[in-house]
Formats: sequence, structure tokens, C-alpha cells
Amino acid sequence: MPEPTTITTDTLIVGSGPTGLFQVFQLGLLEIKAHVIDALPYAGGQCIELYPDKPIYDIPALPRCTGRELVSRLLEQISPFQTTFHLGQEVTSVEPQADKRFLVQTSTGQRFLTKTIFIAGGVGSFQPRELSLEDFKKFRGTQIHYTVPSDSAHWIKQNVLVVGANDAALEFAIQQVQLGNPKVTLLHRRDQFQAQENTLIEIDRLRQTHQLAFLAGQITGFQTHHDQLSAVLITNTQGSTQPLKVDHIAAFLGLSPKLGPISQWGLNLDKRQIVVDTEKFETNISGIFAVGDINTYPGKKKLILCGFHEATLAAFAAAAHITPDKATPLQYTTTSKKLHQLLGVTSN
Amino acid sequence: MPEPTTITTDTLIVGSGPTGLFQVFQLGLLEIKAHVIDALPYAGGQCIELYPDKPIYDIPALPRCTGRELVSRLLEQISPFQTTFHLGQEVTSVEPQADKRFLVQTSTGQRFLTKTIFIAGGVGSFQPRELSLEDFKKFRGTQIHYTVPSDSAHWIKQNVLVVGANDAALEFAIQQVQLGNPKVTLLHRRDQFQAQENTLIEIDRLRQTHQLAFLAGQITGFQTHHDQLSAVLITNTQGSTQPLKVDHIAAFLGLSPKLGPISQWGLNLDKRQIVVDTEKFETNISGIFAVGDINTYPGKKKLILCGFHEATLAAFAAAAHITPDKATPLQYTTTSKKLHQLLGVTSN
Repeated sequence: MPEPTTITTDTLIVGSGPTGLFQVFQLGLLEIKAHVIDALPYAGGQCIELYPDKPIYDIPALPRCTGRELVSRLLEQISPFQTTFHLGQEVTSVEPQADKRFLVQTSTGQRFLTKTIFIAGGVGSFQPRELSLEDFKKFRGTQIHYTVPSDSAHWIKQNVLVVGANDAALEFAIQQVQLGNPKVTLLHRRDQFQAQENTLIEIDRLRQTHQLAFLAGQITGFQTHHDQLSAVLITNTQGSTQPLKVDHIAAFLGLSPKLGPISQWGLNLDKRQIVVDTEKFETNISGIFAVGDINTYPGKKKLILCGFHEATLAAFAAAAHITPDKATPLQYTTTSKKLHQLLGVTSN
Repeated sequence: MPEPTTITTDTLIVGSGPTGLFQVFQLGLLEIKAHVIDALPYAGGQCIELYPDKPIYDIPALPRCTGRELVSRLLEQISPFQTTFHLGQEVTSVEPQADKRFLVQTSTGQRFLTKTIFIAGGVGSFQPRELSLEDFKKFRGTQIHYTVPSDSAHWIKQNVLVVGANDAALEFAIQQVQLGNPKVTLLHRRDQFQAQENTLIEIDRLRQTHQLAFLAGQITGFQTHHDQLSAVLITNTQGSTQPLKVDHIAAFLGLSPKLGPISQWGLNLDKRQIVVDTEKFETNISGIFAVGDINTYPGKKKLILCGFHEATLAAFAAAAHITPDKATPLQYTTTSKKLHQLLGVTSN
């Protein structure tokens, strides 16, 4: 794969939830084009990841709106602006440059040279929740997996333990059985799953035909052999513990938000929130702004509508940072011919 | 008319523009019921008064929305809450009481005893713009009128000068002619009007049939007789000045926002804006909050979406002011059964 070229930009938005998307809009009105990064493979953040179909009732002037609808409305609103989304990647490093710009690198190797950064990271990036045994960390990626491993089709003769009760877990267990693996065990705290009806029916059938074993319990320890994970100790709901031979564990325990590498940027934090002022929503690093649920200031409420306000004031502050010699007057979308032009609408 | 009883309330919102309406919503979620006062005879403020049919493009997640639509959406959003509107009246006095409540009186004589006040007054209350000659003030209400006077049907034999080019001015001129007054003159800076087509056609007809005189020019002075206004000096577009006998002047020059009596409440002001903090959006008087276009703080932008944020944080601050011993945790409309109950929606 050829090395991606470094993208030079005025602004980089980290996070594509509602606040990140509205940040694009407010910057767009000020003629600042944005690149947007998100760890998830699609725009929308928590709204799409956590409650796509649940109604939200407190978006002003939208008495009822699902997370999915909110994101689609915001994407429509920013459509007049040229926005490049860089999805499925996380920022891995931010290095201040001598010229006050920032060199940003993501997990896919994409590099940006940017004058300003907007952290619209919500509760952080969503990462797979991991098994809680501390010493399990050293087997991660080799014998313990939190996403579908690329070589899992070749596990046919190995002992596979699938942990979890959601669609991802059950579908992976079904897939292993379908590939012809006779040694697949499904583990969950209790004999109750949260998945689509079809999947539940198929799991039931595989269990009744003894193609899939099920255990109700929890992993409470493990055994190794030549530094390899050889077995886990499973404590069942009655409290008795038995070893189970394993070559691979695939655990699907849902996603958990993590502040992630942002915690290493040298930003002032207060209880894992980024401290900002309420004039510019700027962090302690000049040129880096934080908006939405990830920031904190006196009075802060983690509400989407507050993120919209923060993004607006931060956009004006960023404009002053990018072009310090140029005034940025407030114009109204109702009356400004300039804004109508930028939005591609005809004035009337 | 019997004296209205004093209404006892936790909160009084002054102004029914978008911010005032969303203030009702956020207070409603915290189970605080609101009374709303507005000087205009309908809810909506500037949105309805200045741009009811012009699209607004920067309300988050509403890519295009007229002022009228915005207000109707907000009225729908607050419909679950019992809100009493007191329209067509202005606050005339605010007196702090010994028990820290405020005694508020309006121009219709309505009295409120309230624990908190939210000033959501936008650019101030809309009042008729007046003729600029300083000494004209003393004839206001007797010979110079800025709204349709109740006794104007009896002016039939008097010299009436109608000033203005809008619907209100032209319709009043037409009405005077229709009442049989032969001495009606219409004055405007130039021979061009801004009114409905039907009205323009009728004005044309009355001028051509010499039932209505028209002068293009401006009032530059006046004459009195026994302390009564007897004539005005009208300077025409060529610069020559002539006196015109008048008994009554009815001037319809549009509405102009005025801070009005609010300027007398003892609030800290900065360039006619009310100074607030950004944690509670509270003024220098404890229990009085100011939200929306009327307030100022570092970074302030006069945008509707900022008013929504301010109203939200102010609502939480007011809850703490009203019931200091009760914590007010943030709940989410997406998940909170309590909020679903308040909003009258079924959880799903």
C-alpha cells in the first residue's frame, strides 16, 4: 500500500456525531472547509451507535426525532459544503509544529497538517469492551479476539470459545459451526440472549442437535502451556468451577467509549473531560478546540443542543485563529446574500 | 374592569420568541411551569414580526425553516406543558420583595408574584417608530398618533396628515377618505409604497380622483397656535419648504425594538445588552436570568441556536434557585421514563 500523502487543511474535526457535523456547518458558513475523522465506519457517533431508532425529544424545534433522523438532517444541512470524511480510523498522534500547525496521524497512516483541531469526540471513541482478567491482555490479537479475526475460517480443528449474547457473538458461533468446527462453545452469564429472532432460532437448533455447546457462567481464571493460553476456568451459576480447553477466545461484549489517545495530547482534563473556556471553547492548547459531550466548563450539560452552541462559538474563534488579520462579522442566513451563495440557495 | 388577581408562580418568562418558547420547554422538563408575557399580540417575537416567511438556514438539523414554521414547531414542542401566555402587554415594574420574590406588573395591570424571571426579550419590545422632531413628543396622543386612534372616525372635518408608505399608513388614509373626510393628505419621502397590491390600486384611484392628496417630502418643522399644533413644514424632494395645515398626524413608520422599561430594573447593562454569566445566564440580580439576543457575555453571538443553549443552562440554574435543597440531575429525553411521562409519550 503506498504511503498516503499528507493532507494540508485549515481544520480537522475529530468525531462525526451531531456536534462534529454541526461544526462542519458553522465553519462552512465562515468559508472554512473541514476534514472529519471518525473511529466508526459511518458518520453519526453515539446517535447511530447507541440509539439510532429511539426518539429524542429535546432538539429545539424538532419535537420528536430519532438519532438516525437527526444525523441524516445534519448531513443534509452540511451538504452545500465540501467535507471529506475519513472514517474507520482514530487519531493516533498529534504533534505541534514550529509554524503552530499540528501534524496529525491516524490509525490508517493518514497524515494531516492542520491549523486547527476540533475535538468533537463525544464520550470518546467506541472500542470493543474486553474481558476483565488483567493477564488476558498478553493474548489479545493472538488467542483472544474482540473483533472477527481475519484467519478465523482456519480454526476448524481448534477449540473455540465464543463469549457474549449479542448478534455479533451468536453469528460468529453459528459461522464457526457452519465452517465445520465440531469444538465450538458459547459462553454467557445466563441462558438468555439479545439478538435477532432468526439468529436465536438457529442457535437453539444448533444446541439441540449438539453441534454447539453452551455454558452459563463466567471466566474466572486460565491455564497456560508453554506461554500459550491452554484452558480457561469457568465458574457456573451454581458457583462450581471447571476448566475448558481453548485455543481461541472470540469475545463480543459490546462497545465501550474510551477517551483513547486524546488523553495523551497534553490537554487539561477534569474527570476525563477536556477543560475549555466558554468564549471560544478552546482547550489549553491554542488552536485545539473541544465541543460537545467531551468538554467541560462551569454549568456544562451533556446535551446535543449545547454542543451546537459550542460548535458555533468555536467556529468564530477558529476563524480568528486561522486568519487573525481578518474580521469575521456575524451574518444571518435569513438575510445574507453571501451566506445564501455559500449554501447554494436563492435569496428571496 | 375588576382588578386582576395577583398570579403566584415559580417563573415568569418575558418574551415569547424562540428562546422564550424553548425556555418553557426546558423548565417543563424540570417540572417548572411558566407564565409568558409578550408585548406583541401573538407568540413568536422577531421571527413572526420581522421574517415570518423568510427561510432560516442555521437552526441545527432544520436545513430550511421559515420564522413562522420555527415558532409553530416550538409551540408544538411545548404543548405538553401547561403554559399561560399573557400577550399584548409589557412589564411596567419589577419590585423585589422581602422574601426574595419579585412583584411584577404589566401594562394591562396584571400582577405576578414570582420566584424567578427570565428575560427572553430579544432586541427588546417592538414599539412604533416615531417622527424624529424632538418637540413633537408633547403632541403625542393628542394630535400626533402612532397607532390608529380610537376617535379617528370623528376627524371628518379636520385636516389629517397620514405619514408612511406601508399597509398600515395606506389603509388608514383610505379609511379616512371612506369616512368622508375631504382633507386627507398622504406624505412619504418618495412616490413609492410598500403595500399589498389591492391597497396600492385603491390609493392610485383615490389620488387620480382627487379624493386623496399626496406629497413627496419630509416634515422639517411645525407651527403652533395657542399651544396646539396648527401646521407642519414640509420640505419636498427639490428642497423647497411649504406649510401644511394639520389637526392630526397619524404616522405609521414601522416598529422599532426598544429595551423599554427593562432598562429601569437595575440590571447591569453593556451597550443596551444585559450582562450575564455563562454558567447560569443569570443577571446581577439573583433570580433574574437573561437569555437570547438581549444578553451579552464574552463570545456572545446573537443566534437563535445560542439562545436555546442559554435557556437550557438557565433552566437548571433556576431549578436550583427555586428549590435549593433538591438536586436536579440531568435526564435524557431518549431514555428517561420520568421525562416521557412529562412529555406525554410512551417509552419504547
